[in-house]
Amino acid sequence: MTKAVEPIRSVEWKNNHVKLLDQRLLPQQTVFLTLTTIQDIWDAIFELKVRGAPAIGISAAYGLCLWSQAFEGDDFQTYLTSLQEQATYLESARPTAVNLFWAIRRVVNVTKSVSSVTEAKQLILNEAKLIQEEDEAVCKAIGEYGLTLFNEGDTLLTHCNAGGIATARYGTALAPFYLAKEQGISLNAFACETRPVLQGARLTAWELQNLGVNVTLITDNMAAHTMKSKGINAVIVGADRIAANGDTANKIGTFGIALIAKALNIPFYVAAPLSTIDLDTTSGSEIEIEERHADEIRTINGQQISPKDIQVYNPAFDITPSEYITGIITEKGVIKGNYIEKLAKLF
Amino acid sequence: MTKAVEPIRSVEWKNNHVKLLDQRLLPQQTVFLTLTTIQDIWDAIFELKVRGAPAIGISAAYGLCLWSQAFEGDDFQTYLTSLQEQATYLESARPTAVNLFWAIRRVVNVTKSVSSVTEAKQLILNEAKLIQEEDEAVCKAIGEYGLTLFNEGDTLLTHCNAGGIATARYGTALAPFYLAKEQGISLNAFACETRPVLQGARLTAWELQNLGVNVTLITDNMAAHTMKSKGINAVIVGADRIAANGDTANKIGTFGIALIAKALNIPFYVAAPLSTIDLDTTSGSEIEIEERHADEIRTINGQQISPKDIQVYNPAFDITPSEYITGIITEKGVIKGNYIEKLAKLF
Repeated sequence: MTKAVEPIRSVEWKNNHVKLLDQRLLPQQTVFLTLTTIQDIWDAIFELKVRGAPAIGISAAYGLCLWSQAFEGDDFQTYLTSLQEQATYLESARPTAVNLFWAIRRVVNVTKSVSSVTEAKQLILNEAKLIQEEDEAVCKAIGEYGLTLFNEGDTLLTHCNAGGIATARYGTALAPFYLAKEQGISLNAFACETRPVLQGARLTAWELQNLGVNVTLITDNMAAHTMKSKGINAVIVGADRIAANGDTANKIGTFGIALIAKALNIPFYVAAPLSTIDLDTTSGSEIEIEERHADEIRTINGQQISPKDIQVYNPAFDITPSEYITGIITEKGVIKGNYIEKLAKLF
Repeated sequence: MTKAVEPIRSVEWKNNHVKLLDQRLLPQQTVFLTLTTIQDIWDAIFELKVRGAPAIGISAAYGLCLWSQAFEGDDFQTYLTSLQEQATYLESARPTAVNLFWAIRRVVNVTKSVSSVTEAKQLILNEAKLIQEEDEAVCKAIGEYGLTLFNEGDTLLTHCNAGGIATARYGTALAPFYLAKEQGISLNAFACETRPVLQGARLTAWELQNLGVNVTLITDNMAAHTMKSKGINAVIVGADRIAANGDTANKIGTFGIALIAKALNIPFYVAAPLSTIDLDTTSGSEIEIEERHADEIRTINGQQISPKDIQVYNPAFDITPSEYITGIITEKGVIKGNYIEKLAKLF
């Protein structure tokens, strides 16, 4: 039995506007915004209404389309100069987001091969849609390859949110759940809440519940007991960056789950597109760990939960050495074993 | 250099009243209540103003003293009958608290050897004080034995709150920090926040900060990265129950930390009094894991943090198999290795 699953898309082009899921309001409210100007897009990126590197890139690309569609006149030089200004403006919404810059550059660059405003308007829109379609295809392939690792009735544990709402569709770590649903295969999930920012509790729990997956929320420190007592078949997580040797930077807590999985003989998978693999980074030790503000730990939703001046350590990511990773699921297949050699071959 | 450390005592007898720390208000406010009647004590236990098995037992014993001191008349039979009624009343404050029953029985039983109200009033008060003094001595011995395992400048990671405010003084897992302070030895701490109830963030962080220890708060999922990158010398935790083979039930999250510590070659210690060791429990598999209400995970301080009807798994404890425990620190010394034989010998 196969079944079409109507996805919740976090970003969608609707001809004269962008329909965007306000992720800040999840899970309490599912609100779709109607964005009609590039300023609306800038605000949405800046105010974190949209999150997830691919989803931010797609939003930015459509932001340029909103501006482009509204451009009046047919002076191509004026169009190009103004496009460049709009691109710079949009980049300022979140200066550390690599995908934002990448998507904007890609859209701007298509104008190099055209000579009129009309043509540029069309090509820019095509390119933005292509970025979204490519991301969807990549995530779908990750989901299909991932699904080959699991069986009907399996229970997977996941951390943070590497889900459909962070991408064009399907997500990465959550992609197998979408593909399983489409193919009528039943998978169960345990979602770690993912302190301090609670992406697991707020987003993954909501997203999988919405998809109709049997999902159970746990606090992060319940992972070991849950893995031992609830028949977890595998762990699957996303990645922020994968080094040439397979060492993986991902949301804080991933490393601990990997160590626990190894001790309990549970396979531990990383699901990520090739764009996450950085062959210039030799190993995880070269990846700098960003530290975030102490109040993320001291408070929850603005409420104090600890002494207010307590010293805090708040690393945003950790590094899982490749020896703890059973396999890396990419859009070109599942990589196992000699990561240095096999990851390089993908490119 | 040795230094007297003025402890914060969660329960103190003050002749005509009990001075009790309202632990519900920590860490935002440090409020000491003046309790003058057995009803006040009943309320304090029922409303969780006092927590920690030893602290609850001590409070109950003093509750009977408050009633006893206020008893008017010298009819011994009336006194005994009424004492029994008061004991039953006090037991109803928290029917699952074993220490509560134990302390009340101990106080009531001393009246068996006396024949007058005056004498009973004195012996009851003596017994209550003795319960507190014994608990303090036990915790101090645990701290002293624990301290033999650590060196000046060491950094220990702890979970939940096995601290002085849960006992007469010193606590169990935190006892070495108190003894170190008294002896002028510097120890540093990392405290895991301990979701869902946040005893680490609310109590341990506050208690160690108050003691002048260099303490850093982390979320539970930061334990692995912190142990790897912050030079953690050892982990030390308390215990709710220790089986005859050394398997230890403790706050949820302990098992995961033990697995991580083993993988990273960091010693993992359990600090607990003999009263925690249950030789009738052969192994951890016999210990039932209490599951608590889903809203402990779905909400924090009454605020929703997940879909409000999300399925939740909320085990209060987990079991750490003894093979992951480097040593068990008791008031009779540090037990390592053959737990079945060595734990039995302690009794």
